[in-house]
Amino acid sequence: MAMKNELIQLFQETRINSLQICKHLAIEDYGLQPVEFVSPPKWHLGHTTWFFEAFFLSRKEGYTEYHPDFSFVFNSYYESLGQKILRSERGNLSRPTVQNVLEYRKYVDEHVANYLQEKELTDKEIKIIETGIHHEKQHQELLYTDIKYSLGTQALKPIYDEKFKETIQQEPLQWLSVEKGLYSVGHADEGFCYDNETPQHQVYLNDFFISSRLVSNAEYIEFIEDGGYQNVLLWHAEAWDWLQNNNISFPLYWQKEEGEYYSYQLSGYQQIEAHSPVTHISYYEAFAFAQWKKMRLPTEFEWEVACKKFNYGARWEWTESAYQPYPGYQKAEGALGEYNGKFMVNQKVLRGHSIVTSPQHSRPTYRNFFHPHLRWQFTGIRLAK
Amino acid sequence: MAMKNELIQLFQETRINSLQICKHLAIEDYGLQPVEFVSPPKWHLGHTTWFFEAFFLSRKEGYTEYHPDFSFVFNSYYESLGQKILRSERGNLSRPTVQNVLEYRKYVDEHVANYLQEKELTDKEIKIIETGIHHEKQHQELLYTDIKYSLGTQALKPIYDEKFKETIQQEPLQWLSVEKGLYSVGHADEGFCYDNETPQHQVYLNDFFISSRLVSNAEYIEFIEDGGYQNVLLWHAEAWDWLQNNNISFPLYWQKEEGEYYSYQLSGYQQIEAHSPVTHISYYEAFAFAQWKKMRLPTEFEWEVACKKFNYGARWEWTESAYQPYPGYQKAEGALGEYNGKFMVNQKVLRGHSIVTSPQHSRPTYRNFFHPHLRWQFTGIRLAK
Amino acid sequence: MAMKNELIQLFQETRINSLQICKHLAIEDYGLQPVEFVSPPKWHLGHTTWFFEAFFLSRKEGYTEYHPDFSFVFNSYYESLGQKILRSERGNLSRPTVQNVLEYRKYVDEHVANYLQEKELTDKEIKIIETGIHHEKQHQELLYTDIKYSLGTQALKPIYDEKFKETIQQEPLQWLSVEKGLYSVGHADEGFCYDNETPQHQVYLNDFFISSRLVSNAEYIEFIEDGGYQNVLLWHAEAWDWLQNNNISFPLYWQKEEGEYYSYQLSGYQQIEAHSPVTHISYYEAFAFAQWKKMRLPTEFEWEVACKKFNYGARWEWTESAYQPYPGYQKAEGALGEYNGKFMVNQKVLRGHSIVTSPQHSRPTYRNFFHPHLRWQFTGIRLAK
Amino acid sequence: MAMKNELIQLFQETRINSLQICKHLAIEDYGLQPVEFVSPPKWHLGHTTWFFEAFFLSRKEGYTEYHPDFSFVFNSYYESLGQKILRSERGNLSRPTVQNVLEYRKYVDEHVANYLQEKELTDKEIKIIETGIHHEKQHQELLYTDIKYSLGTQALKPIYDEKFKETIQQEPLQWLSVEKGLYSVGHADEGFCYDNETPQHQVYLNDFFISSRLVSNAEYIEFIEDGGYQNVLLWHAEAWDWLQNNNISFPLYWQKEEGEYYSYQLSGYQQIEAHSPVTHISYYEAFAFAQWKKMRLPTEFEWEVACKKFNYGARWEWTESAYQPYPGYQKAEGALGEYNGKFMVNQKVLRGHSIVTSPQHSRPTYRNFFHPHLRWQFTGIRLAK
Repeated sequence: MAMKNELIQLFQETRINSLQICKHLAIEDYGLQPVEFVSPPKWHLGHTTWFFEAFFLSRKEGYTEYHPDFSFVFNSYYESLGQKILRSERGNLSRPTVQNVLEYRKYVDEHVANYLQEKELTDKEIKIIETGIHHEKQHQELLYTDIKYSLGTQALKPIYDEKFKETIQQEPLQWLSVEKGLYSVGHADEGFCYDNETPQHQVYLNDFFISSRLVSNAEYIEFIEDGGYQNVLLWHAEAWDWLQNNNISFPLYWQKEEGEYYSYQLSGYQQIEAHSPVTHISYYEAFAFAQWKKMRLPTEFEWEVACKKFNYGARWEWTESAYQPYPGYQKAEGALGEYNGKFMVNQKVLRGHSIVTSPQHSRPTYRNFFHPHLRWQFTGIRLAK
Repeated sequence: MAMKNELIQLFQETRINSLQICKHLAIEDYGLQPVEFVSPPKWHLGHTTWFFEAFFLSRKEGYTEYHPDFSFVFNSYYESLGQKILRSERGNLSRPTVQNVLEYRKYVDEHVANYLQEKELTDKEIKIIETGIHHEKQHQELLYTDIKYSLGTQALKPIYDEKFKETIQQEPLQWLSVEKGLYSVGHADEGFCYDNETPQHQVYLNDFFISSRLVSNAEYIEFIEDGGYQNVLLWHAEAWDWLQNNNISFPLYWQKEEGEYYSYQLSGYQQIEAHSPVTHISYYEAFAFAQWKKMRLPTEFEWEVACKKFNYGARWEWTESAYQPYPGYQKAEGALGEYNGKFMVNQKVLRGHSIVTSPQHSRPTYRNFFHPHLRWQFTGIRLAK
Repeated sequence: MAMKNELIQLFQETRINSLQICKHLAIEDYGLQPVEFVSPPKWHLGHTTWFFEAFFLSRKEGYTEYHPDFSFVFNSYYESLGQKILRSERGNLSRPTVQNVLEYRKYVDEHVANYLQEKELTDKEIKIIETGIHHEKQHQELLYTDIKYSLGTQALKPIYDEKFKETIQQEPLQWLSVEKGLYSVGHADEGFCYDNETPQHQVYLNDFFISSRLVSNAEYIEFIEDGGYQNVLLWHAEAWDWLQNNNISFPLYWQKEEGEYYSYQLSGYQQIEAHSPVTHISYYEAFAFAQWKKMRLPTEFEWEVACKKFNYGARWEWTESAYQPYPGYQKAEGALGEYNGKFMVNQKVLRGHSIVTSPQHSRPTYRNFFHPHLRWQFTGIRLAK
Repeated sequence: MAMKNELIQLFQETRINSLQICKHLAIEDYGLQPVEFVSPPKWHLGHTTWFFEAFFLSRKEGYTEYHPDFSFVFNSYYESLGQKILRSERGNLSRPTVQNVLEYRKYVDEHVANYLQEKELTDKEIKIIETGIHHEKQHQELLYTDIKYSLGTQALKPIYDEKFKETIQQEPLQWLSVEKGLYSVGHADEGFCYDNETPQHQVYLNDFFISSRLVSNAEYIEFIEDGGYQNVLLWHAEAWDWLQNNNISFPLYWQKEEGEYYSYQLSGYQQIEAHSPVTHISYYEAFAFAQWKKMRLPTEFEWEVACKKFNYGARWEWTESAYQPYPGYQKAEGALGEYNGKFMVNQKVLRGHSIVTSPQHSRPTYRNFFHPHLRWQFTGIRLAK
């Protein structure tokens, strides 16, 4: 019983938290989609609600869908659950309005809460609700990063929240050593995890050193000023094309004015803080920086084995590891099987979490993943050698 | 004095009317830009305001710009007036909010009205205010067509105004004849006109017949059902590529369901009315239809010479004429010279006006122009032979 | 009978001439297609042959097609004559080899010549042979311009023919005047013409002046050095985008090295000759130059009426006229009707001819047409005012 | 001395072999580049020659470059060695002609051979010559695959060599088992290897089974006919988009006619042989096939450990492993460092070799790599479980 009450409480807190993140927004901000990889806040609010409707409520007898077209509008990428609008069209929907979406949330929340309170839950039902909660926590992080992109790339650079602090104090650098040997990696305990963290398995690691802190803005500025963005030998071939085609010579949101570096942050446009970790860099930039330092990025397993020795959580940390299935990986049956497995190509693993990751939504075994050129997450660099 | 009062009244009516058109919208609708050629309603409201600020108020001593960034945001295509946001970015601006833009309108309206009331106006000043008014009337038509596009292409196809009637009753077809000879075309009287309507000049026309009414939906459905969209010999080469690349086999907004034709209209999605003029067709489609009928479109001069013999104003009427300067055409000096002349290539002239054209914003000499593939205006077909 | 012998002789001369043009080429040159609008020399040789096969021989009893796949390979744009390779694929065909194509030419030439010699010819047959001959003469010009493009854009800039002289001496400038009035334009005499030159009809022209010679390289260099390519007010809106997107600041084939202007010519890369006509400019550039001079381009009818007063034939001369059907224009029935009419949109008329136009392939009424941004023809500028 | 003679002999055999591969071609075939990832045979012949010139001869005193522009033309991707033509432009070069390139080869061959015979060679020099030889062997494989693509996608589907046999007999399927444990992988012996095969290191593997033979055409046809290409749950998200955008429902070169499967092979267009290995499939297809079989692809290390138990060499075998650096990997200094390391992102490793791989150009540790959607190599599928 305790557990059931905890589940209900976690459900309700999570649902409220998504609304808290949006409370700084104007109605007009809810519909923005300046690039395809960003979704409008309104869409996140609707999609996370649809997730509970599609995977849970709609399978219960007697449940009436809130609106017949919402599945079309709020499905993200579950190809097996029917037609859906093109991802690039999300920003072109003025309807449902923000008010409608809030009502949709209320309707679904009440139905889920009632069901949870009134019924015996099967293990499978608990699993689905848990997945829905964790899914929403992932979208809470995307709410922050998508809002930052949508506001920060506008002409007027509007402030999200003056009090939102992105910078972080870091301790002096130490090199932490790990000895070669066989290690267990992957998730094993009772708590929630995604399928991509399993099964636990053994890997052999060589001796290595890993940095106790992230690369700072000051260090990254050295790289810039040493011509790092112009030295082809530091970059992957695809990275070099990406730099040229997009005219890139700074991290995302950065500008240089009269010799000083500035960036857009959620609290507004401001000067770069030298000692805070460099942020909003792609894997390509992380790799090139490491090359320039004559070091390298850790693999995801080196990171996982070493992570108890250092503080993390300021920025998602790019690793050298491609996102691939663990030995013996089994994806879930049916539509939920589309959650992770189908993205296991052409992406890089990031470990840790960031200041906009939901609390409770991080584990030493957690595997985040993005294409190597993407930068709108709060990403950073930890070096190894 | 009378004239000055009229100018003030016209200014104020025009400014109010733009707001009237928008009163059916939700806040969320004001920011939509589903394709590059459509602009958000909010942008139209801001841009028409900026026009008065940039070309009139900002040249007056003592005037303080409402906001330093609004010129960047609300300039449309005046390359000579400084930097501006990319056209495709208009939909990515949540700020200024709708409320801000309404305040901006109020600020500019008051300053213009005060100036008009208090000062002696030069001819040049009157000309600029008149141009600003006519410019805004053009944007009022774009408000209708852009709103239609932005709502009508959404998944939920929201209604703009249930009472808005697009269909038109037409009288039976008659063939009106015009005799060959030399005719004067172009604008000559005292009233307002654009530079592209001048100078008046002579053209020689052969004998021709022109239809007393527009092609109806029923006639166009015959063309569709006779395989018109599949018969390559009816189409221009570029038209044929356009059909194939965009999978086009109907006018814009049309769908066929179980043998019946439907379309989105400002009053909602509904069945096609057989006798109303076919609407939302490109020049390419108008031309192919005429070929299929073994007739042709009139030239813009045939249209102008014949127009007093028939009713027009339901739809903009595609002509066979390319948009080119009249003999002796002089474009205005400076930024206003960018208004018309720089578009005189690769476009076709449309004559008349449509049900969403602002009253007073039409003349027999008025030359509208669009690229031959565009369809989101209220366009129609009048045949000649 | 005389006439029939003349036809046979004209046929044979024309067929031989195409081969003469190619005699300077290496085998490797025959297959080049560096951009979609250019075709490989081998393709021109095959296509002009296919034209006689498809429109003439294949309609004769007892004729055996040379190769069942050649229609697929050598059809250009006759949508009504069956499937064809994509235009952009012409350069990807190494087979048929050059040798095969020469044999194909021989086979078709013999069959046509035999038929012409042995049979009574109907008027329609004569018309088709004539059209085929004129069609091939058009392709002879394209052979020159496509070869120039294909060689001149290569890294090694190979010479086509050292003796080929592109430059032209011009006499001093005079302004020739034409009086206003009604004039007849279009083709009327017995000789061959294309359907787009008919019917002859009347146009009214205002008084105008037209230049006795073309704009020279020296004059155009003045325009360049006065910042013509950077002054937005001189350009059409689409022209301005074209300049920016393609980084254009010179005519095609030009380069500036240490203050001097050079260009690739068929006789090799060399310094610009100041007094020769500027060449390889687009309509957009011709228009902008005229704006800068505070003059204009003539219309095609002004040109046609005035042309007996000046020398022409060095360069195709851009006119201000869009390519449109004449009043009463009827396109030919069937596939031949695809020859001209279907291109009558979004193109500009050029008049006269150029140094690479086939002899006998020009008339005062001849209407050439190209999209306004294209420059690989030998185009030039004649001013009017 | 023996070793030096062997090196000279290997150099000469290798150089001759490239010409042998091309002896079936017409001159016109040497210049083909139908898609960007394919290079013309002439370019391969020039580029492999340039490699010896740029990395070896040009660093010797007294050597005169064959032609000042050939470096621009024949450099492939060595950004640090100066300007080069765009990859997509290789097919637009008719000059140098085939004859010129053969003379270039002769010139360089003589200079290299003379140097090798006359001088004491340093270890570094031997290493460079060896690398040049292995580099040319890689291009010999590309000659086959690029020629196949360039001929097989033409309208006339010309035969390369009637006697060239692509099909392979395979023995019945057995499942070979490997026990879990720590294994050494990577290159360690004295022979030549690329930097990406080093350093040798330890990996831990679980128990697994691997198939003794490749998946056959008959098995793959079952997958096709069971709707494999239409079942979204079998595919990666990016693979699904790739299928839709490119209309893919067969391996490359396949067509279905009246219920039978055909493909283009180097000996011509012909019916599929049921028992031969399926070929020209992408990683995406290999993965989806394995999903459908409820099995998986081996990792590159499973493959390397197991490979002595089975026959390989008919087709390159896709593995599940992303192409990444080995622990402790050091790329070579300078331009040669661009050889492998800069491609270590977004690609998948293939192991083994294929029927068009040069003899001596395969090792159990050899790591080939391609983007997951590419199919023009002779690729195949070996299953694991």
